[in-house]
Amino acid sequence: MHPFPETASFKRLAELAKEAPDLTKSMATERIDKLFLEQLGMKLLFATERVDEAILADLEHLAKERGAALQMRAMQSGEVINRIEGYESEERRVLHTAVRDLSGGKGLSPPVQEASQAALTELNKLKSFLEHIGDRFTDLVQVGIGGSDLGPRSLYLALQRYGVKGRRVHFISNVDPDDAALAMKDLDLRKTLVVVVSKSGSTLETATNEALVASFFTQAGLKPKEHFIAVTGKGSPMDDPAKYLASFYIWDYIGGRYSATSMVGGVMLAFGLGYEQWLEILKGAHEMDQHALTENPHQNLPLLAALLGIWNRNFLGHHTCAVIPYSQALTRFPAHLQQLDMESNGKSIDRHGRAVSFATGPIIWGEVGTNGQHSFYQSIHQGTTVVPIEFLGFRHSQYGKDIEFEGSSCQQKLIANLLAQSLALATGQKSSNPNKNFAGNRPTSILLMEKLDPHTMGKLLAYYEHKVAFQGMIWGINSFDQEGVQLGKKLALSVLDEMKNRKGTFVLGEAMRRHL
Amino acid sequence: MHPFPETASFKRLAELAKEAPDLTKSMATERIDKLFLEQLGMKLLFATERVDEAILADLEHLAKERGAALQMRAMQSGEVINRIEGYESEERRVLHTAVRDLSGGKGLSPPVQEASQAALTELNKLKSFLEHIGDRFTDLVQVGIGGSDLGPRSLYLALQRYGVKGRRVHFISNVDPDDAALAMKDLDLRKTLVVVVSKSGSTLETATNEALVASFFTQAGLKPKEHFIAVTGKGSPMDDPAKYLASFYIWDYIGGRYSATSMVGGVMLAFGLGYEQWLEILKGAHEMDQHALTENPHQNLPLLAALLGIWNRNFLGHHTCAVIPYSQALTRFPAHLQQLDMESNGKSIDRHGRAVSFATGPIIWGEVGTNGQHSFYQSIHQGTTVVPIEFLGFRHSQYGKDIEFEGSSCQQKLIANLLAQSLALATGQKSSNPNKNFAGNRPTSILLMEKLDPHTMGKLLAYYEHKVAFQGMIWGINSFDQEGVQLGKKLALSVLDEMKNRKGTFVLGEAMRRHL
Repeated sequence: MHPFPETASFKRLAELAKEAPDLTKSMATERIDKLFLEQLGMKLLFATERVDEAILADLEHLAKERGAALQMRAMQSGEVINRIEGYESEERRVLHTAVRDLSGGKGLSPPVQEASQAALTELNKLKSFLEHIGDRFTDLVQVGIGGSDLGPRSLYLALQRYGVKGRRVHFISNVDPDDAALAMKDLDLRKTLVVVVSKSGSTLETATNEALVASFFTQAGLKPKEHFIAVTGKGSPMDDPAKYLASFYIWDYIGGRYSATSMVGGVMLAFGLGYEQWLEILKGAHEMDQHALTENPHQNLPLLAALLGIWNRNFLGHHTCAVIPYSQALTRFPAHLQQLDMESNGKSIDRHGRAVSFATGPIIWGEVGTNGQHSFYQSIHQGTTVVPIEFLGFRHSQYGKDIEFEGSSCQQKLIANLLAQSLALATGQKSSNPNKNFAGNRPTSILLMEKLDPHTMGKLLAYYEHKVAFQGMIWGINSFDQEGVQLGKKLALSVLDEMKNRKGTFVLGEAMRRHL
Repeated sequence: MHPFPETASFKRLAELAKEAPDLTKSMATERIDKLFLEQLGMKLLFATERVDEAILADLEHLAKERGAALQMRAMQSGEVINRIEGYESEERRVLHTAVRDLSGGKGLSPPVQEASQAALTELNKLKSFLEHIGDRFTDLVQVGIGGSDLGPRSLYLALQRYGVKGRRVHFISNVDPDDAALAMKDLDLRKTLVVVVSKSGSTLETATNEALVASFFTQAGLKPKEHFIAVTGKGSPMDDPAKYLASFYIWDYIGGRYSATSMVGGVMLAFGLGYEQWLEILKGAHEMDQHALTENPHQNLPLLAALLGIWNRNFLGHHTCAVIPYSQALTRFPAHLQQLDMESNGKSIDRHGRAVSFATGPIIWGEVGTNGQHSFYQSIHQGTTVVPIEFLGFRHSQYGKDIEFEGSSCQQKLIANLLAQSLALATGQKSSNPNKNFAGNRPTSILLMEKLDPHTMGKLLAYYEHKVAFQGMIWGINSFDQEGVQLGKKLALSVLDEMKNRKGTFVLGEAMRRHL
């Protein structure tokens, strides 16, 4: 595969970028009426992106030139795409889509069928386990970090509305001992289930927190074995029935950041929300998986979103992308997307091991609206660094507890603010007082949905997984490994050695330690 | 005041930046031993910033050339610095420092004394009020948004360890009705106090949420007047004793994002943590206020931090700055800093109303470590966009509940990871496998403290307030207004009008609305 900048579309788009549409001049009702894509009950509004027909046409060419839809099909068909050609690398399939195919991979390739069947086995184990424990437990503590925490946690927080009455879920991730101390403070341990999640079974933070949490149980005269569940890879150090009440499996073809729909999210979500709601999440995700195979980029939601992101990143030169859900329930969803995107696409080499000469994944950040409007929006509107924004919104609230106040409901105010911000950032405002001047021409999009329920959450989760994957596919990078986290881990062990033994072999670490 | 790029130091620094030190070559124990500043029990380690003696000397000149310490003195002396010369602007003093001077502004100018005395009056009112209510309330709900939420909330979460037993605090900020629905779900309203915070008394979200929360009380047969407290400006629509159990004042010289140490944070924190702990926060902040007046930039913690930030922003050209506390308790502190910094310094004009030709406040973002290591650190180490990082760390945990695991405690693992990340980002690593190659030379600093207690939290809060203010002073911008939030507000009201009346006068808003 050619380096991304050598494609014909790249060159044309680079030319078009020199005269990209100015939204302060071109915003019009015709754009708003025309520039949107509705699929699966989700509506992507992109009239407020700095695109026009020529740019959209070349973005479409770009997707075809890079074989984006074909690559997505290859991924979902179980090809070994997690690899760097010519170098030692993970050499794995990428099959998070298989684990939510409740048909068992019907009509698909043998490795996909195998993965789907294995996932169905775990689902059935989970169903039986939940029936078996009945009402014995009121609380569940998920111990895990990174992908074993962010995706599952953001989904649980998003869907608490649908929670099983009388059940609560808690999370421990940080090796900071205060994380566990606070989470465990008020729990009735007799009725508490602990789910320890680590694919390798050897994640330092998780193993440490497991030992710390286990010490609370033994101090209370309880046996961890009767409360602890493992979610781990087959054959890992944690795959030990003697130590756990139950074990559920994940596999090397499920990346941590893509694991929310595997047992990594499943045990906790099925406990907290109920098994049927958990299946709804899977069904929603699967629906989006199928949709992501659509060949026409202008009919494919995550592919179109990926292309608009690439336009902002590589051609308009923006370094960050904010995701701002106008939904309090999505409070931690930006943190999940931060991992999903930055760990997948924050790379400096392509799939052939060549150094890239272009910008890959941007810095992803964000908070919920309307809160952000009273926080960082000053900079969004008048700062010197332009931030493209992906707004998310829902037509209806989850609880439906609302009032009329000054002539409109809370939900109306929420959605009016969402629409208004997108317009304000696009059009700007001229003023003779320079402090009331808004340059405008700041690109945003809105993904509009009906209501945040488990099925929609599944679709939204998969939408972003595929958006991120598509960007990596178009850039020609491997979105599924994470070699960049290794060096820090290694040096941390060296510093720990210094702290324990005062050996002085890692001189920089020793010098740092002296400041403690 | 000259535009920032016209100063002599700017020109010299721009030259020096062309050959800025390469940390992969220059990291050495001597740097680590030498490049730090310890003041007030806080140690700023900056050997891992891309500076050398010449650069540090010119940054010192820059601070002097811009009169940074003099400007800080002017601020703390009550000069009218919140203004744009020659244009209609807020024309206000900036006196958040006065409200935490428990001496009552002894020896300072009349406006400062007046502000300090007024703050003492509110403090005494608060003390009496808390004694008066005794144990009548177990729960407190803070209703506020932006500065009335982020600072106070992040402080409460940081200091829960020191909470009064049996008391809990909750927050409602978003106009999304699901925010209030979730927060109020399990409360015993009879024992619940509601603190409504709005300086203007007319913040749309807050007024709406106040009405929504009041409806829960009336539906339960309770009188809001017996449960609701106002924190507002004198004479605001909320300054109405007939409607509230008690009222506490704030003033126009306290900006929202600088208001955590006024009654905006005070009522909730003194209730949740106890009045004495609240005073400790104020004392810590006051200690930092005094320290920030230090003239020598190399002895002044927040000024030095400001200069290092300006070096990264304006001379090395970085667009973002991550704040990563290795402390679970500081989980929402980056969100507060995001507002503090981006709302203060995300500006495009200087204090004379001239358009700036240089980058002002960066995008501030971050999550706690070690969690981030398993999330976005891939991009931090190997992404194409370099992110300067401000690490925060503490020698001791809050709860002290810890275990030895594989030869070290959790706290040791936490701090070892912090030191190691800073080194790994600086030194990088060469490898024949390009995927295991780390370019290094990525600038970071570490602020090391003893333990996160109320006094230290006060110091840390003020440290950042002054760092942000110093950057604005050096850039020559007004860090204390927020005109950039007005346009979105205005258009939201227009869209709401469309939604209510279908008038069709705001045609773009009407076109957007049709997508709902």
